[in-house]
Amino acid sequence: MSELYQQIEALCQKAKKASRQLAIASAQRKNELLRAIADSLEQGRSRISEANALDLARGRAAGLSAAMLDRLELNDHRITSMIQSVHDVIRLHDPVGESLKKWTLPNGLQMNKIRVPIGLIGIIYESRPNVTVDASVLCLKTGNGTILRGGKEALESNLVLTALLQEASERSGFLRETVTLLPMTDREAIPILCQMDSYVDLLIPRGGHGLIETVVKNARMPVIKHYNGICHLYVHEEADFSMAERILINAKCQRPGVCNAAETLLVDERIAARLLPPLFKQLRDHKVKIFGDARASQAAGETLPEPENWTTEYLDLILAVKVVKNAEEAVKHIEEYGSHHSDAIVTENEQVAERFLAEVDSATVYWNASTRFTDGGQFGFGAEIGISTDKIHARGPMALEELTSYKYVARGTGQVRE
Amino acid sequence: MSELYQQIEALCQKAKKASRQLAIASAQRKNELLRAIADSLEQGRSRISEANALDLARGRAAGLSAAMLDRLELNDHRITSMIQSVHDVIRLHDPVGESLKKWTLPNGLQMNKIRVPIGLIGIIYESRPNVTVDASVLCLKTGNGTILRGGKEALESNLVLTALLQEASERSGFLRETVTLLPMTDREAIPILCQMDSYVDLLIPRGGHGLIETVVKNARMPVIKHYNGICHLYVHEEADFSMAERILINAKCQRPGVCNAAETLLVDERIAARLLPPLFKQLRDHKVKIFGDARASQAAGETLPEPENWTTEYLDLILAVKVVKNAEEAVKHIEEYGSHHSDAIVTENEQVAERFLAEVDSATVYWNASTRFTDGGQFGFGAEIGISTDKIHARGPMALEELTSYKYVARGTGQVRE
Repeated sequence: MSELYQQIEALCQKAKKASRQLAIASAQRKNELLRAIADSLEQGRSRISEANALDLARGRAAGLSAAMLDRLELNDHRITSMIQSVHDVIRLHDPVGESLKKWTLPNGLQMNKIRVPIGLIGIIYESRPNVTVDASVLCLKTGNGTILRGGKEALESNLVLTALLQEASERSGFLRETVTLLPMTDREAIPILCQMDSYVDLLIPRGGHGLIETVVKNARMPVIKHYNGICHLYVHEEADFSMAERILINAKCQRPGVCNAAETLLVDERIAARLLPPLFKQLRDHKVKIFGDARASQAAGETLPEPENWTTEYLDLILAVKVVKNAEEAVKHIEEYGSHHSDAIVTENEQVAERFLAEVDSATVYWNASTRFTDGGQFGFGAEIGISTDKIHARGPMALEELTSYKYVARGTGQVRE
Repeated sequence: MSELYQQIEALCQKAKKASRQLAIASAQRKNELLRAIADSLEQGRSRISEANALDLARGRAAGLSAAMLDRLELNDHRITSMIQSVHDVIRLHDPVGESLKKWTLPNGLQMNKIRVPIGLIGIIYESRPNVTVDASVLCLKTGNGTILRGGKEALESNLVLTALLQEASERSGFLRETVTLLPMTDREAIPILCQMDSYVDLLIPRGGHGLIETVVKNARMPVIKHYNGICHLYVHEEADFSMAERILINAKCQRPGVCNAAETLLVDERIAARLLPPLFKQLRDHKVKIFGDARASQAAGETLPEPENWTTEYLDLILAVKVVKNAEEAVKHIEEYGSHHSDAIVTENEQVAERFLAEVDSATVYWNASTRFTDGGQFGFGAEIGISTDKIHARGPMALEELTSYKYVARGTGQVRE
């Protein structure tokens, strides 16, 4: 057992203990804790800014990209919106304790299936330090302890944010360790955390391929991946062309750097030559770079560069275009190359649409709408910890209910089994 | 890539394809498939018996224990009840397609959260060959493909049972591979199956420590463990003694070899000297061997052997007894040594009972009832694929609903995100 292993185990052990205390706290006490957190953050603004300035300076010195530095930055506006989101979560309904089903067995045993916290949730994320607060607050609201491992470039910010959360926790009569940050930046800390299944009930990795691969390979506990979105828009031959254009521009361009943005356009061969040329003009007006297969080039009357593959999440103003024979081929393509996140069909043909909605095995399937709606806020869930790309427990936007498990409570009068 | 890896991958690939066909089949078509399976099994009785006789003969030659041979045996009565259970499953309601929630976004987008199959489910089990049919049938009912890996001592039986399921599948217009058995008995087949996360959506290991450890260590896909039950009965000082006795005898003796049988008795120190001597007499009348800590010995007025630990699942007529100070210590013991399966309190004090029910973090918690009720049939679920000892997705008895995931279906009229 390495020293690092022992350090991480000790932190997990304490965090688990704190999570048991949270698990049985009332909604009111948990909201008091959240209010104390909002106050802590408000009073800690200058501490946060100083720590963040240190991270940014180190990041600049290390030559981080502008996009990376932007993700790292916690300016006044972002601190305000972080505090605001704590207040928003306070107003949400706490699902813990809700009865999902009540019934009585023939022998009189009274059964109640109720929502309970999951326990201790591990969250592994990359550069954005606001996740430290946003994720912890959702876990606390639902009675879960949180053990965090953020990106090393945000370490100073994360340390201060966690300290503020812990101070609030203590002031509210909870153990400090309701929120715990792994402060060690060693690469091996993640594989070690993945071994802590005696303490950590669920691990949520949010990030790129390398991180997800490390977690999937090493985790002994359940994992809910927040991974990539290879989202498709399929334009069927019976589509309303102007609607297809509007939806595509929105799905690709409104915010290209997010997981629910479209990466691939599939077009029926019968309409490709009519649809593509004007559509490509519009896309280029939005500065979109277009890749396409040979048939897309032919239909567009120009030579498009071929995409290297159909499985890249560009997260950028880049679109891959493929001409397909029909809906069947489109569904097959999505099944083979998609990431089961969000996929849409544009058509006026209800029968074709319904078949697409049934056959495409994705968390959200759309008929005549943009893939960009896949989001806890848009869905009306109030908040989300992220978007699950798994099918077990939570699929798609993961909100408060998805941060709970359940248990069966049986109240009897001496019943025994025959 | 070893040859074995390639063979297993090829089987998984075909099974995945078959599962997509099942996923979109109607309840009626799936029931027709189940009826065809019942017919296949009926007509295949002699084939099953012959294969099973071969397994039994090999098992006897290999010196398997009587208990093991009993688990392996498929006599006429067991074949009949296997067929009967297929008919029972036909009568159950198919949860696939059910709407879990319907709502409309402010922009008019119509949202529907519906139950869908999980996809391809891998089931790894040990000796009982009836699991081949029982588990597959529940997966098929819910539109899931099944990839099975049974114990090598039951291989001949499993091969015939799977062939019968596949013949029925083909006759009903489905692909043969809706049910697929890994026929290779190599030890490495399980770790390789654990790598098949591109095809297998969920892995359910049912078995002992070695099997669970292999799966937990190697699986890249979600796993729902069906592991052990270290179930506790806690007798509070305000218990009705005769009720406590009745419940304990039931929880320990009615069927000691199952996961919901009690393994540990916790007794309040204030009543131990009155409760234990007559209770131990009754237990011994039921041939129960008793281990106890020093205080239990003292209270009982005899020297009990100390248990080696508090985490053994005896699955036998053995009970470990510990004297505790109060409910708090009982809850702490259960938290530390239990397996979060089923735990019970006996008391007439409602406040103490409610605190126990809230604080004990187990799938089922009982007040004044036997732990033996934790069972899909007893709970009224109609059938169960097993009892999950995990907290994610499915907890406790895992029935048809727990074999489903969900997806969001969004029907629009051209909505785009602002």
